[in-house]
Amino acid sequence: MKKIRVVVMGSTGLVGQQFVRLLDGHPYFDLAALMASGRSAGRPYGQAVPWAVGGDIPEQAAQLEVLDTSLETVMSQAPDIAFSALPAGAAEGIEPALRERGVRVFSNAGCRRQDADVPVLIPEINPGHLELARWQQARYGGFIVTNSNCSTSGLALVLKPLEKFDFREVTVTTFQSISGAGRRGLASFDIAGNVIPWIKNEEEKMERESRKILGELTADGIRPASFPVSATCCRVPVREGHLMSVSVRFANGAGAPDVAEALAAFRGVPQGLGLPTAPEQPIIVRPEEDRPQPALDAWAGRPERARGMAVSVGRIREKGGAMSLVLLVHNTVRGAAGACILGAELAAAEKIFS
Amino acid sequence: MKKIRVVVMGSTGLVGQQFVRLLDGHPYFDLAALMASGRSAGRPYGQAVPWAVGGDIPEQAAQLEVLDTSLETVMSQAPDIAFSALPAGAAEGIEPALRERGVRVFSNAGCRRQDADVPVLIPEINPGHLELARWQQARYGGFIVTNSNCSTSGLALVLKPLEKFDFREVTVTTFQSISGAGRRGLASFDIAGNVIPWIKNEEEKMERESRKILGELTADGIRPASFPVSATCCRVPVREGHLMSVSVRFANGAGAPDVAEALAAFRGVPQGLGLPTAPEQPIIVRPEEDRPQPALDAWAGRPERARGMAVSVGRIREKGGAMSLVLLVHNTVRGAAGACILGAELAAAEKIFS
Amino acid sequence: MKKIRVVVMGSTGLVGQQFVRLLDGHPYFDLAALMASGRSAGRPYGQAVPWAVGGDIPEQAAQLEVLDTSLETVMSQAPDIAFSALPAGAAEGIEPALRERGVRVFSNAGCRRQDADVPVLIPEINPGHLELARWQQARYGGFIVTNSNCSTSGLALVLKPLEKFDFREVTVTTFQSISGAGRRGLASFDIAGNVIPWIKNEEEKMERESRKILGELTADGIRPASFPVSATCCRVPVREGHLMSVSVRFANGAGAPDVAEALAAFRGVPQGLGLPTAPEQPIIVRPEEDRPQPALDAWAGRPERARGMAVSVGRIREKGGAMSLVLLVHNTVRGAAGACILGAELAAAEKIFS
Amino acid sequence: MKKIRVVVMGSTGLVGQQFVRLLDGHPYFDLAALMASGRSAGRPYGQAVPWAVGGDIPEQAAQLEVLDTSLETVMSQAPDIAFSALPAGAAEGIEPALRERGVRVFSNAGCRRQDADVPVLIPEINPGHLELARWQQARYGGFIVTNSNCSTSGLALVLKPLEKFDFREVTVTTFQSISGAGRRGLASFDIAGNVIPWIKNEEEKMERESRKILGELTADGIRPASFPVSATCCRVPVREGHLMSVSVRFANGAGAPDVAEALAAFRGVPQGLGLPTAPEQPIIVRPEEDRPQPALDAWAGRPERARGMAVSVGRIREKGGAMSLVLLVHNTVRGAAGACILGAELAAAEKIFS
Repeated sequence: MKKIRVVVMGSTGLVGQQFVRLLDGHPYFDLAALMASGRSAGRPYGQAVPWAVGGDIPEQAAQLEVLDTSLETVMSQAPDIAFSALPAGAAEGIEPALRERGVRVFSNAGCRRQDADVPVLIPEINPGHLELARWQQARYGGFIVTNSNCSTSGLALVLKPLEKFDFREVTVTTFQSISGAGRRGLASFDIAGNVIPWIKNEEEKMERESRKILGELTADGIRPASFPVSATCCRVPVREGHLMSVSVRFANGAGAPDVAEALAAFRGVPQGLGLPTAPEQPIIVRPEEDRPQPALDAWAGRPERARGMAVSVGRIREKGGAMSLVLLVHNTVRGAAGACILGAELAAAEKIFS
Repeated sequence: MKKIRVVVMGSTGLVGQQFVRLLDGHPYFDLAALMASGRSAGRPYGQAVPWAVGGDIPEQAAQLEVLDTSLETVMSQAPDIAFSALPAGAAEGIEPALRERGVRVFSNAGCRRQDADVPVLIPEINPGHLELARWQQARYGGFIVTNSNCSTSGLALVLKPLEKFDFREVTVTTFQSISGAGRRGLASFDIAGNVIPWIKNEEEKMERESRKILGELTADGIRPASFPVSATCCRVPVREGHLMSVSVRFANGAGAPDVAEALAAFRGVPQGLGLPTAPEQPIIVRPEEDRPQPALDAWAGRPERARGMAVSVGRIREKGGAMSLVLLVHNTVRGAAGACILGAELAAAEKIFS
Repeated sequence: MKKIRVVVMGSTGLVGQQFVRLLDGHPYFDLAALMASGRSAGRPYGQAVPWAVGGDIPEQAAQLEVLDTSLETVMSQAPDIAFSALPAGAAEGIEPALRERGVRVFSNAGCRRQDADVPVLIPEINPGHLELARWQQARYGGFIVTNSNCSTSGLALVLKPLEKFDFREVTVTTFQSISGAGRRGLASFDIAGNVIPWIKNEEEKMERESRKILGELTADGIRPASFPVSATCCRVPVREGHLMSVSVRFANGAGAPDVAEALAAFRGVPQGLGLPTAPEQPIIVRPEEDRPQPALDAWAGRPERARGMAVSVGRIREKGGAMSLVLLVHNTVRGAAGACILGAELAAAEKIFS
Repeated sequence: MKKIRVVVMGSTGLVGQQFVRLLDGHPYFDLAALMASGRSAGRPYGQAVPWAVGGDIPEQAAQLEVLDTSLETVMSQAPDIAFSALPAGAAEGIEPALRERGVRVFSNAGCRRQDADVPVLIPEINPGHLELARWQQARYGGFIVTNSNCSTSGLALVLKPLEKFDFREVTVTTFQSISGAGRRGLASFDIAGNVIPWIKNEEEKMERESRKILGELTADGIRPASFPVSATCCRVPVREGHLMSVSVRFANGAGAPDVAEALAAFRGVPQGLGLPTAPEQPIIVRPEEDRPQPALDAWAGRPERARGMAVSVGRIREKGGAMSLVLLVHNTVRGAAGACILGAELAAAEKIFS
């Protein structure tokens, strides 16, 4: 297969770095260029980036000169795909313009997730929503596909296999890591040894996006699922990995072993296709009474290329008609860059663009 | 008033230190002796204790020679009251024996909380349960009064004013600080930069004790309240203060402003009596969207002697028939030593013993 | 004594908050107004400030409307003294202008510390340097007095009593807390569970300011002391308190007990005058092998008003002609706001202005 | 080459886990058995170990039944090599007995490091000291080879290439991570958000072992080098990686560029032999002003099998005849298990035993 030419916008932030890490030696994609803000532009990526996602900067990427994020510059690279780790404001400006010029944008930015024709894609859950990308392509030439908010990615993955138990209501309290705020997003004095029980817009996103992801594709676009989600989102002094305490009320009388089995057995289209970034097992059920834990489980997932792409679940208990469990998702991998790349792999495998 | 002669057992641990701090210059109580394990016995308290609760060791206490915790030694001090910060095993051995010898024991230990004639006292909530102490006194000469588990103290205080809204069900996820495990109870490598989503026996205690505290005193003892409590208890890398995300389902249609008003207006018997360790306002409602926070609010409570005795509540929101809120309680003060001392103040004021 | 009318510029940052806390109920000073950046101006201080220095916002201060920091606004308050917690850029603009208008500025800003006629005042060490304030007053009407950089304050205090041992060279490695970077100065992802072995300009300041503080007042201004200081400044994930490992090479053969005695016995002019914010004992020598520690000792100092004003020293050991010790200083109190206020108290007591 | 049969004693602690991780798929060594304390014995390693060193437990190791650490049990496995991560007390009992029975012990335990005929081996520095193993083998049948204390490993590696500048004196302050105390060695309440400026026996070990490692092999054993080392050892709330601020006084006038070049160019025998766990470059010099940092650099070293085996050095500066620098070493890899394994690789390559 001829490799697909890709660029990464917003490449110096934490999510951008995860893109670069995951694209190193990628079997489908060829990293052609890296964009970042004006401050970094013109310097080799290896010097411009405060690399903070583990290991060394991939050598090929380190040599690339960082480019600015103007439409002209991006188009000058003739990308098939633009991966976007841009903040919402910057994304709003350039992503639709790239789509108009035929580029396929896989974006971690939140600004287009509510568009009727833009899928919020989690390839194991709603691969069919990629149909919306075809619709966009017909209309614009290119398309925008988004991944979900980082917390939502873990929650939605776990809810999907539970659909058969007919759940009615979800209550979730999150323990979100500081990397979720971006490298510079949170002052250390505010969070050191502390918990902040609020994250701007996060609860709304979890509630809205969960329903869209689990919604049904109709001729009019996505019809959201109807279950209510009640979220309380909190920041904790952890570097990587969002943990969540979830309570799900079922209509039928499923027990904890049924739930554990359904979660552990879950496989999606990416597993069937053997996509490079797809974890062999998307949901790992931990039998220990005190797992999952961010320090031990954030990077769950095999093979090597899929590290951080599996969601870990533990403490599955039934109580008074509700099922309680704890889940953990790597927020900048499964919840951001990894989800985007897996989406692009799916689109490539399904020949959405050729 | 002639001062009441008190001793503290288990005085060198974190809860024991809070006892010593709170008893310094206390208007009712005169600290006669401090007990600890054999390792510390025979040394001045000021040298034996790894003081870690802020400020300097009170001077009078620092001079006291630490005594061992045998029945003979404790009785040799002729205490009116023995405050106990003993671990459950040690408490099990000595507390009933002291009661038999006429001592009033106010205990933070968990081992007797389930006894039918032992109250789990939170003076603002169930002052009437002190009647059980009279029953014990008639039978044994002395009595044992316990305070609740640390997390329960915050939850029960907040539930009390909500009784009028006829709540039916409580779901709670806790963010508990490391001091709750005792000074040596948790290995730093396990919790540094991490969350541990399980605390041994804690969920059972929260569920059981909440119902006893809010239960009704009958001729047969306490009849527990009947609402179900579903708890997920997690440890976070915070030094002091247990935060909780709580969801309460009401039968009637109370709104967030009703709840906020009921909480802020709540006062109990200790406030009416002006007990020394009673906070002017037991529950402080924070209007900010990102409060309470352990680093900022753990020590809430006025006047000075009642610092750490007020519970802070924020983020009161209604969603689909359930009320969500976040609360914070100082686990070693309101959740332990402070609760015991306030209970003893109440007993003294009500002349349970004379 | 008629109270002296003071304002605080930069009042909403961490150092500004310490000023407000320390000025509450101050026996010499009357807090007339609080200034902050345009964002906060116009709102009551109690709403504008993200209070983070413990306890509640002092009530009188909470009611004050925050004012902007223009020269006109400050002068409209007719202050006798302006305390400044401004960043260097803002300080550069307004402090000299206030001086020209007769205001006495006590400043935590670094920009004027190198001026020949501006003292870097640590009242216990170099009270005589206040003479420079008289010189300025004669020339400008008002004056600027600075306190030292936060790390320097601890180091210089400990070096002063060691002068008699004729020290020749100082090597210091710091463990500096995140509050030293200001509330928003350090991203949590950068420092959580990490050490950053560099702080911009800090080593240069420690070296330069130590020598000026311990320098001699001559007719030409301060002649700096001549000992070399070699500093390595590191940031650690601690909220408050700068710890330092110090090695001092002596010309004479002083032993560890001599050093301990000299440090513990040290008293300065503020102690002799009984200034309100002066700690009874400026340097506390800890006998324990594992002290001082930020979590336990940052707030050392008595009486209550002087909490955080004492420097703690431990681990005094001699090795091969060099004396090693560990010291701890509260960076935003003794190293910033407290030092400024103590300086102003000294100036008031010595009737530098009347 | 026929693989060498090895066992790991003390396999469930943090250092033991690093042994297991590093031995997975090792080209020289075949992991035959894992020993641990009685509590774990009899269970599969995968269930007995609280795995905490990243990734998943190697599958082959996970299946092994944990054995007890009695002499009989260890000998029943007929090991060529016993790797030891035992605590000193347990090591004292069994290591010499194994040596008497012909086993080659490579030990992380501290108890034999002072023996005249036991080398403290850092293969890049003192490969010639392995001669002592031959001496032991002639006498006992087997031998004991130790690696150094974790902090010493980083310091000694950096001092080696500086010998040519004729250094006279070393002053070092450490920032040691909590994993250095073992998984259960440090209470979280003691270190969370804190610095503890003392580690039991650590300073003495750094001083003594540095001189032995850099000492000269003579007919009477090792003659220690004579430079004085003055160490202040501190614990910081970091999970992995010991950082050190080092000041070295040179007799000759080497400049910072000379030092940087000597460090970066350094290679040892393991690099020449291409040993599997040898990092291509033992010392990595970082040009950035704020590196190395534990969170970013602890795992330095290539290729994959040598991750954590390179020491990072930065901030090389000259000041007044002394050279200052900051170094970082992964304490449980280069400072413990990795050093042992590299030593065994060297012994195997040099056919110390055949």
